Amino acid sequence: MRTDAAPIGVFDSGVGGLTVLRALRGALPSADFIYLGDTARLPYGTKSAATVARYSSQCAAALRARGIGCLVVACNTASASALNELRREYPHMPVVGVIEPGAAAAVAASRARHIAVIGTEGTIAGGAYQQAIHRLDANVRVIARACSLFVAIAEEGWTEDPIAEAVAHRYLDGMFAGPQMPDTLVLGCTHFPLLATAIAAALPPAVRIVDSAATTAAAVAALLGAGPCTRGAGSVRWLATDGAARFARIGSRFLGEPLSAADVEIVDL
Amino acid sequence: MRTDAAPIGVFDSGVGGLTVLRALRGALPSADFIYLGDTARLPYGTKSAATVARYSSQCAAALRARGIGCLVVACNTASASALNELRREYPHMPVVGVIEPGAAAAVAASRARHIAVIGTEGTIAGGAYQQAIHRLDANVRVIARACSLFVAIAEEGWTEDPIAEAVAHRYLDGMFAGPQMPDTLVLGCTHFPLLATAIAAALPPAVRIVDSAATTAAAVAALLGAGPCTRGAGSVRWLATDGAARFARIGSRFLGEPLSAADVEIVDL
Repeated sequence: MRTDAAPIGVFDSGVGGLTVLRALRGALPSADFIYLGDTARLPYGTKSAATVARYSSQCAAALRARGIGCLVVACNTASASALNELRREYPHMPVVGVIEPGAAAAVAASRARHIAVIGTEGTIAGGAYQQAIHRLDANVRVIARACSLFVAIAEEGWTEDPIAEAVAHRYLDGMFAGPQMPDTLVLGCTHFPLLATAIAAALPPAVRIVDSAATTAAAVAALLGAGPCTRGAGSVRWLATDGAARFARIGSRFLGEPLSAADVEIVDL
Repeated sequence: MRTDAAPIGVFDSGVGGLTVLRALRGALPSADFIYLGDTARLPYGTKSAATVARYSSQCAAALRARGIGCLVVACNTASASALNELRREYPHMPVVGVIEPGAAAAVAASRARHIAVIGTEGTIAGGAYQQAIHRLDANVRVIARACSLFVAIAEEGWTEDPIAEAVAHRYLDGMFAGPQMPDTLVLGCTHFPLLATAIAAALPPAVRIVDSAATTAAAVAALLGAGPCTRGAGSVRWLATDGAARFARIGSRFLGEPLSAADVEIVDL
């Protein structure tokens, strides 16, 4: 590890952001990461914007105190509610959220100029994807729906499962009906990539799925180039605010590799 | 309202405890209530026992400061983790949880001396129902399972629904199989009474369902007799720690009557 290397900080309300970390590690295999799951206060998705912004600021401060050189807000709710404030607090550090990359990928993918977005209640009600898409192209039609049950299904591990498919049909059939239907679906929650198979099975075949974890990782890699944050030893340091055992058990599924509770440090924010 | 009347404080991590409040209002129609939903920090079910005990102590203090004369811990996780501590903190005030009444009703109902318990991850892993049942009768067999998806389904309102039934079968079929199966099922989460129809449809017909909301209300009514807490004007004061609109919208379903966001006071604990 070079002495000028700085780790990349990644935070989420829990384990969902591990899908983003997984994509980041694939895109930047030599980077060092510090992941913080604010598990004591999850989920952010049902909380008010002011509360989420305050929690996000505390997460960012805890990571900054550990020497990070770049911050990835791996949580849709926090990206929607806190990104501008975090950029003001850390004007000299790159701060990347998951919404702008996902919105850009969706606008690029949609030929019909009609995009569907799914996420948690907080993300959808806040309208951040809808606004980010319209900032890029005001003429794109956007429809959005909160799919709260997908979070519980992903955490339960029922991901390639008839129940997951039935729930996907219940949420999506109404969005993808009729001749004017969207041709692109944004997975606007970091839990949802685990359900990509069930979601795809419920969609008409021509619909493209935009995974905001993958698009965020690509955006971070492009932004950092060959800078100090990309030159490390490929390590990850694990922080959580509560429940190391649960974090490791459910997190392993999101990360796609085993995670040990003994490696998770509990921090108080 | 008589001048010696004191309201009954009821708290939960969110809206689930409203099923307990609903049962309490039915059992004690003249009592005044103060309900506190700690919505900023929900759910308690995935948090550690120490964290839940700390949050519960803060909820109790907020209610005590508003003059309550009796405290109902309308949350299974908090009842499991915090009841003893709360009783130590308030030695002169009745403090009732939802676990002991449910356990007693189940032991009374089971002829097979074999009881099944379902709840959140935290309640089941903590083993509080299992222990409470064994304190009453050490020879009763108890099997338990966490049914996390039921919470999300209840909040989504998909309560009498094929998806709810499919999920109920997934969770329950393995518990109610074979000749030695339980004859009693305890709904060990305050969200679950909303799913009683779907749960009953997935059970063998002879199985009795014990609803801990109803049994807790009966226990509180018996404990208070005709004391000052039962002599009020039948009013309810609403407190939440975040998200008045969501609390009112989802809470109405749990309470069984309309609830207005304008009537919900946001408090900081």
